[in-house]
Amino acid sequence: MTDTVIRNVRPLGADPSDIVIRDGRIAAIGPDAHIQASPDAETIDGGKRLLFPGLVDAHTHMDKTLMGLGWYRNDVPPSLLAIIENERALRRRMHIDSHQQSTRHARKAIATGTTHIRTHVDIDTEIGLAGFEGVRRTQEDLKDALTIQIVAFPQSGMLVRPGTVELLEQALKDGADVMGGLDPSTIDRDPVRHLDTIFGLATTYDVDIDIHLHEPGELGAFSIDLIAERTKALGYQGRVVISHAIALGSVDDARFGHLVEQLLENDIAIMSHAPGGLRPIPEIKRLRAAGVRMCTGNDGIRDAWGPLNTPDMLERVFIMAYRNNLRKDADIEELIRIASSGGADAMRVPDFGLTVGATADLSLVDGETHVEAVISRPGRHLVMKAGRITARDGESVV
Amino acid sequence: MTDTVIRNVRPLGADPSDIVIRDGRIAAIGPDAHIQASPDAETIDGGKRLLFPGLVDAHTHMDKTLMGLGWYRNDVPPSLLAIIENERALRRRMHIDSHQQSTRHARKAIATGTTHIRTHVDIDTEIGLAGFEGVRRTQEDLKDALTIQIVAFPQSGMLVRPGTVELLEQALKDGADVMGGLDPSTIDRDPVRHLDTIFGLATTYDVDIDIHLHEPGELGAFSIDLIAERTKALGYQGRVVISHAIALGSVDDARFGHLVEQLLENDIAIMSHAPGGLRPIPEIKRLRAAGVRMCTGNDGIRDAWGPLNTPDMLERVFIMAYRNNLRKDADIEELIRIASSGGADAMRVPDFGLTVGATADLSLVDGETHVEAVISRPGRHLVMKAGRITARDGESVV
Repeated sequence: MTDTVIRNVRPLGADPSDIVIRDGRIAAIGPDAHIQASPDAETIDGGKRLLFPGLVDAHTHMDKTLMGLGWYRNDVPPSLLAIIENERALRRRMHIDSHQQSTRHARKAIATGTTHIRTHVDIDTEIGLAGFEGVRRTQEDLKDALTIQIVAFPQSGMLVRPGTVELLEQALKDGADVMGGLDPSTIDRDPVRHLDTIFGLATTYDVDIDIHLHEPGELGAFSIDLIAERTKALGYQGRVVISHAIALGSVDDARFGHLVEQLLENDIAIMSHAPGGLRPIPEIKRLRAAGVRMCTGNDGIRDAWGPLNTPDMLERVFIMAYRNNLRKDADIEELIRIASSGGADAMRVPDFGLTVGATADLSLVDGETHVEAVISRPGRHLVMKAGRITARDGESVV
Repeated sequence: MTDTVIRNVRPLGADPSDIVIRDGRIAAIGPDAHIQASPDAETIDGGKRLLFPGLVDAHTHMDKTLMGLGWYRNDVPPSLLAIIENERALRRRMHIDSHQQSTRHARKAIATGTTHIRTHVDIDTEIGLAGFEGVRRTQEDLKDALTIQIVAFPQSGMLVRPGTVELLEQALKDGADVMGGLDPSTIDRDPVRHLDTIFGLATTYDVDIDIHLHEPGELGAFSIDLIAERTKALGYQGRVVISHAIALGSVDDARFGHLVEQLLENDIAIMSHAPGGLRPIPEIKRLRAAGVRMCTGNDGIRDAWGPLNTPDMLERVFIMAYRNNLRKDADIEELIRIASSGGADAMRVPDFGLTVGATADLSLVDGETHVEAVISRPGRHLVMKAGRITARDGESVV
């Protein structure tokens, strides 16, 4: 394979640069790096565009987007249990094909510069493993264009629905990448047994853990305590993500400090997509200032939960900035890092970034600055995964 | 002038319709309304696109956008007084031309389907009336494409800067449309004298009132009490807008109920643009359910306050929905009404709406539904102001 050189692009915080790509990896990057390319290299003119690293959607639900199925008019009551119930009923009625839907989602994600996704796939006693199997096919079909990590996720509860644990275990045997969990007290009504089961399965199959935690205040804080205890006892430091972690926005300062200590001690990462609503949410800047590892994601996209999210991670960064009231360029640049290397780190993606030796996952975007591009969000000029072009002019070419 | 007919468009909540436009007004609207047009009417094929009424940005700051001046790297401390101080310093350094900047802003607004803007123009003892005069020129230049209402606005305080009252009065003599105000206690340090001065000038020059109120909790609630008292005493019912009104999000239920009673009794409208941040904000759905009139706006756009807002009112509706966690179609449709007829009502625009006899202010937008268009926000296909085409394919043509 001959080298590819992209000339004259602007990486975040660095001088205009060239990138030499060899065997899918960055062989050189920097001003005038093109001289390090082989003589027969194929050259792409970057046209002074912005260079972004691969964008990482570290929390979404590819199996249940309704994209492409006609507009779903949402009239669901705003309670978690009602939403989950409505979603199962809709799934029965519409016969949603998770392979088709996750493929649609994937192509839109690729088109906007996303190179890695962690997706929580519903597993319950109604759908069984059908949703999981569909997303597995998408994972395999598109593996050269998009890295998909699948979380085995008990969306409808685990202990409260006998038979779910066995299905989750089967998914892990069949290749699910990560063990999921959900609100140990408010959904599953037994925090200790919920978490012991999840950690038990994860350690048995040697997979990482990613737990949805919507529980607010002291109840959610207690769940974080329990997660931290198990992370420590089982040597799972660096392998656990708590998604949403709403409690981190609704406890007093002393309790917040104690929770942060536990997160740091056990190297637990927090996923926040900066949810809407009038209740307090985890403060991203404060968590980052304390040294907590963070990632983000688009959560459910145009599904029975609501229509507002899109597959575009630059739109997610915009939402994070707006919701957290972060207006300084330096703060928004940190959000871009959370939406790229922060996610890669949480997903434990090796060789990620815009450095020599890393996989050539990147996109070229028109704009004055990276922050300006987060606000204007133009169609991506070019997207690459491991040195291969996967999207041009805002459209997937895979 | 011959009639114009737009065939086959989809108004919000109505069957596919035609619109007949005569002398800048809607002469007929509804299924097969085209038969009511004169035989020589010019016909536009609506192509089943969505029909939106004119969008109304009822709260922005056209004099101080930095659009087109190169990217401003924001590193301003997050305090109201520091931001205001920084902005004045920047204005001195950059010699910002309010006529040029407000024209840039106006063209972007027109391109996205906005037909009416209320803009708060800084008046202080440093800039005097220069900012105001520049926006007045824009108001006159573009009057056939965009209705601009100018609020004489003491951004840097009024009583705390002797000479400001006289400048505000001069602006009213020179044609400012609305009297502004700002945080009577936290900025001007004397709530009674601040409000008495504002109401005094407004009644003398017979203009409406629009007051910025960022004061939280009981302090802001006290300001609302004082505003309501004066509205009643001076017979200004229906002529007062409180912008931001942050206190409505941070008082207890009993106090909230009492404030709402006063707003209703005095027909005071609330402007909320659904600000970012982790502190509580006014809940739009709750205020509307109580019957409070509401409008919205984009606030400052790419200025020294921050880079996040854009001129697109459909993006504002998206932000309002996300921030308020409104996911049902019916709720988001109500936000679209707030961003159009709600604003027109607050600005007391006559003959507004998609009804026979109303001025033909409208836009055609690609999309599955109006709510879907709020999320995808495509370039507007066509924008009309009083029956005249002002934008096509996402670009202003005026």
